[in-house]
Amino acid sequence: MERRRELCDAAIQLLAVDGAKGLSHLKVDRKAGVADGTTSFYFRTRSALLRGVAERLAELDLANLQSIVDGAGIKPSSPSQLSVMVIQSGMEPQLSLTKARYELTMQATRDPALAAILQQSTDAFTKLHRDILVRLMPRGDELEPAVVEDLSNITLTFINGLLLRFAHGDRIITSPEQLDAILAALASGILKASKAGRLTDTSAARVLPDHSL
Amino acid sequence: MERRRELCDAAIQLLAVDGAKGLSHLKVDRKAGVADGTTSFYFRTRSALLRGVAERLAELDLANLQSIVDGAGIKPSSPSQLSVMVIQSGMEPQLSLTKARYELTMQATRDPALAAILQQSTDAFTKLHRDILVRLMPRGDELEPAVVEDLSNITLTFINGLLLRFAHGDRIITSPEQLDAILAALASGILKASKAGRLTDTSAARVLPDHSL
Repeated sequence: MERRRELCDAAIQLLAVDGAKGLSHLKVDRKAGVADGTTSFYFRTRSALLRGVAERLAELDLANLQSIVDGAGIKPSSPSQLSVMVIQSGMEPQLSLTKARYELTMQATRDPALAAILQQSTDAFTKLHRDILVRLMPRGDELEPAVVEDLSNITLTFINGLLLRFAHGDRIITSPEQLDAILAALASGILKASKAGRLTDTSAARVLPDHSL
Repeated sequence: MERRRELCDAAIQLLAVDGAKGLSHLKVDRKAGVADGTTSFYFRTRSALLRGVAERLAELDLANLQSIVDGAGIKPSSPSQLSVMVIQSGMEPQLSLTKARYELTMQATRDPALAAILQQSTDAFTKLHRDILVRLMPRGDELEPAVVEDLSNITLTFINGLLLRFAHGDRIITSPEQLDAILAALASGILKASKAGRLTDTSAARVLPDHSL
């Protein structure tokens, strides 16, 4: 497993710097400093290599999530753990993972097995995002599920856009405190509007039903 | 020019369906139904082809923007022209352009000439977005430039995230009316918070100075 991990870490760096086009089994060998053919031995096809990278990214994400929920669980804190994590995603060493994830995501539109692995990470992050949001809101536990869904969908879409801008070197915010302030501002607007009716369609979205509140 | 346009339109479809990896001069020839070698004649290198595609996308965007500001200019309307445009970007035939643009954007992180062409479209859209936003706000013309900047940066980041989700087939909203309601909700939250201090860093962002208010 250690060798596979090492190869995947080399592949992540290649994806981040050169994009999907810059990834080949031989380049991973050279990047990892192993004998030519090693990557082909562990990952027979390009799709297998991409799936390996997606699983390695998920493993790194999970370790990151774990460190967040460790201790006394998710607590209100300033800056929030969510914002710390997002801002870190825009800075190295996390930024390479963010860029590699975008490359994989583009590939995944044409590779269902790859898409399924990435979806697991997305779902885990979506759940964490929702849990932290609810805890950040005053009396968040009393919010209607539909309102939490709107809140979660909209702020997560904002974070998607933010991470995409980070991946392109476009940093419109630089501190977790700023992100907290923005999320709080967005949430206050959404909470007010959400009372008048649903803002987003969960039916149309690829949201896992088993992540119910 | 007609032939170049035709080849670029075929390239856009290839990018949308097969991604950057699925694009080659020969495939464009076949897709466009022209003699092998035609695309190589018009676009000597891969980078030249990608720049041609970016320019064609910009041309299509411009035609779209033009139809929006035609007549009596940008007027408040319901649903807003901005939201109509964004929702259209998530449906064919516009969705292919959205997908092709994301493929180009990933390539552009490694091709400065390509990035410069894409940036022009981004700037045009950013300016339109800001103009429409200001007109949508009650007494928008009286807003502080810094507040408009926050409003524009944050809602545009949300739209970036939304278009990315559309490109991946993830439709969390389906009508321009819904998007208007969300943008209004976000704006009300941002306006309230923005009075207490700046929410975003324009200095760190790649915002063109000549698009001042």
